[in-house]
Amino acid sequence: MFRVPRTSLAVLLSLSLAGTAAAQPKPTGADRTVRAIRDSAGFKVAVATLDREHERIVADTITLTEIPAPPFKEKVRAEAYLALLKSHGLSVVEMDAEGNVMGLRRGTAAAGQPLVVIAAHLDTVFPEETNVKVRREGTKLFAPGVGDDTHSLAVLLGYIRALDAGKIRTKRDILFVGNVGEEGPGDLRGVRYIFTKGKYKDRIAAFFSMDGTSAERVTYGAVGSRRYRVTFKGPGGHSYGAFGIVNPMGAMAKAVSDFNMIQVPTKPRTTYAASVVGGGTSVNSIPDAIWVEVDMRSEGAPELAQLDAKFQQIVKDAVAAENAARSTRVGSVTAEVKLIGDRPTGSTRLDAEIVQVTEAAVRAAGYTPVLGASSTDSNMPISLGIPAVTIGSGGSGGRAHAVDEWIDVAKPESLKGMQVGLSALLAMAGV
Amino acid sequence: MFRVPRTSLAVLLSLSLAGTAAAQPKPTGADRTVRAIRDSAGFKVAVATLDREHERIVADTITLTEIPAPPFKEKVRAEAYLALLKSHGLSVVEMDAEGNVMGLRRGTAAAGQPLVVIAAHLDTVFPEETNVKVRREGTKLFAPGVGDDTHSLAVLLGYIRALDAGKIRTKRDILFVGNVGEEGPGDLRGVRYIFTKGKYKDRIAAFFSMDGTSAERVTYGAVGSRRYRVTFKGPGGHSYGAFGIVNPMGAMAKAVSDFNMIQVPTKPRTTYAASVVGGGTSVNSIPDAIWVEVDMRSEGAPELAQLDAKFQQIVKDAVAAENAARSTRVGSVTAEVKLIGDRPTGSTRLDAEIVQVTEAAVRAAGYTPVLGASSTDSNMPISLGIPAVTIGSGGSGGRAHAVDEWIDVAKPESLKGMQVGLSALLAMAGV
Repeated sequence: MFRVPRTSLAVLLSLSLAGTAAAQPKPTGADRTVRAIRDSAGFKVAVATLDREHERIVADTITLTEIPAPPFKEKVRAEAYLALLKSHGLSVVEMDAEGNVMGLRRGTAAAGQPLVVIAAHLDTVFPEETNVKVRREGTKLFAPGVGDDTHSLAVLLGYIRALDAGKIRTKRDILFVGNVGEEGPGDLRGVRYIFTKGKYKDRIAAFFSMDGTSAERVTYGAVGSRRYRVTFKGPGGHSYGAFGIVNPMGAMAKAVSDFNMIQVPTKPRTTYAASVVGGGTSVNSIPDAIWVEVDMRSEGAPELAQLDAKFQQIVKDAVAAENAARSTRVGSVTAEVKLIGDRPTGSTRLDAEIVQVTEAAVRAAGYTPVLGASSTDSNMPISLGIPAVTIGSGGSGGRAHAVDEWIDVAKPESLKGMQVGLSALLAMAGV
Repeated sequence: MFRVPRTSLAVLLSLSLAGTAAAQPKPTGADRTVRAIRDSAGFKVAVATLDREHERIVADTITLTEIPAPPFKEKVRAEAYLALLKSHGLSVVEMDAEGNVMGLRRGTAAAGQPLVVIAAHLDTVFPEETNVKVRREGTKLFAPGVGDDTHSLAVLLGYIRALDAGKIRTKRDILFVGNVGEEGPGDLRGVRYIFTKGKYKDRIAAFFSMDGTSAERVTYGAVGSRRYRVTFKGPGGHSYGAFGIVNPMGAMAKAVSDFNMIQVPTKPRTTYAASVVGGGTSVNSIPDAIWVEVDMRSEGAPELAQLDAKFQQIVKDAVAAENAARSTRVGSVTAEVKLIGDRPTGSTRLDAEIVQVTEAAVRAAGYTPVLGASSTDSNMPISLGIPAVTIGSGGSGGRAHAVDEWIDVAKPESLKGMQVGLSALLAMAGV
């Protein structure tokens, strides 16, 4: 997950509202809905439960964070989460064929009617051997994956207990999901399965992805991404004896170096990174293959396409430059460009109910909504026209995707933040 | 191993000799010594034995090639070779503390007198998972490591059998060695041990390294090398969320790209290669560490030092460029430059007996000696002032250090080539 505020839009919205109501925005229908939910006796009991059980949510966060869950290796964590979902008394708790785990909290509507999904992802970006031991310093928890997205998994369990304690019956069923494959190489395989093959695929009326901590964010835009693994191949040979022949390392280095100099627009936000690299036989050999992975993203489809085209040209040019600079007598350098990730760009309409109630839920909790676009599990429903937003689990955090990732679970902010998701969820499920 | 002919020198020598003896070089003392050895009845029986047992040498080559022996993981092959040495009836067959295996063929001199070593190296450049199955096509054998240096191991065994069959008693003891650590990361650890700590260290009067196939080569020069592993570190972070921060991949790519453009002298031969690279967390993360290994070599010490200095500056500049190009707000890119290989430059004197008799042995077999410099196990004795040359096992081969490495074991050339090493060895051991 990640998003960056489309600040300009938020500012424009708040300015225009300020103009009509003397710095006090006029409540919308969504605001009234959320207000009614928050004022209900059941919601108050639910919040009191989250308050009382704060340390339990922290403990669950630590337990789950310390189970490694690299892309495609989420199974152990998934089974642990499945067991937790089962212990929370949901009606149909299961793991699907892709490895997602889920449990249904039945609403008052007849079985088989449209439902609302709230999901957190099981996977982290970190390889299996990463030290995932959580270090706690006061209210801060430090560990790879702790905020992206393990804390959210724990918060969803807190929601189930809170709803049960508050005896809150929703109209629609709510499906609680811990899904696989959100990060990098997973390429949204978890939600892709849920929306295209899973048993609930035709029943999903609205989708919340809870990803990261920020309580202010309302990610309605899907940042598109294209990811490639480029393998540069050459003849290889002895570093001394074969000196003078082409080296695929040279093509890789020039390609990455030139890629690294591309200027991208800040609006729509467009980014790139060369992220993972490998190859070579031994220090005294000219390598026969070097591969590198790159990530490109944009809020704008044309900008992403343009960046992609530049990248393709850079790879071609780097190969040509290496073949021109050194001897090809025993073979040339070639590049195989393999698409390993392709996420659609798109957005949920700003006037869609899910965006409206989530913004209202953010405001009701005392925050200013920050609307934005990102690359998250919501990209999948958004690309299918299903209303979806990505929200945060509350509290704060930083350094996602870095080994020094952290979250702050100080109770006041956490509790305030958790009410955003809970009230938005109830607004969409109906009470 | 590898060497490239110092052609100019060979040409100059032959021209000057040509000038004094009307295109027919005058036989030297060494030529007479080698001639006498070749003409002896014992040597003829020895050669007949090599001839008869040709397929046994090929079979041993295949057997040993198919035992993987990456740097630091030579043990299984070493034990197999130890067993073969034992079965050849040498007097003291053992593995030393470094993992070298060796056996002594006693001479007629009193025990403990100076001896001659002939060694082939056990290790290959290829990682453990490399397919080392030998593919035979007629007289050609294809497999990683087959010629560098596994065939030599089999030829040494052939020599022992041939000497025994010819009932050849040398004056000096001959130590037959299969040593570890010649390639890349091994950094000559095998011979370093033999010459600085091994039980024979104070007795070695002359050293032959048999490495590669060429029967014409007389490698008397030690190509120096410096090898580094550079680790570029940075803060790392989310590829989208943290876009704009420094990326160690950028510094690595610029460093390799600039390194790749260095112009080096062809005389003294000077080479470089970026050879192995790795790092990164996942495709959607800006990496926090990228490492790359480089190899630099030269026949000339000042040229090597100059190349090294350029490399160090390039690394510094690449780090500075990355830190200038992107934000360092969460941390800067740094580079840790670690020396992982350092082999001395030097040479055995051209008028040394070992060079003279080896040249004579090459000529006596019908070849033109190609004198040259290389980076081989001989670098170690050469740096200690002990007479040493690196020779070939006979036959031909190519693509050393590449997975399509091959040798041609066609009998006539192989047999002709094997007599070079055998007669030079006998000349140095004394008969």
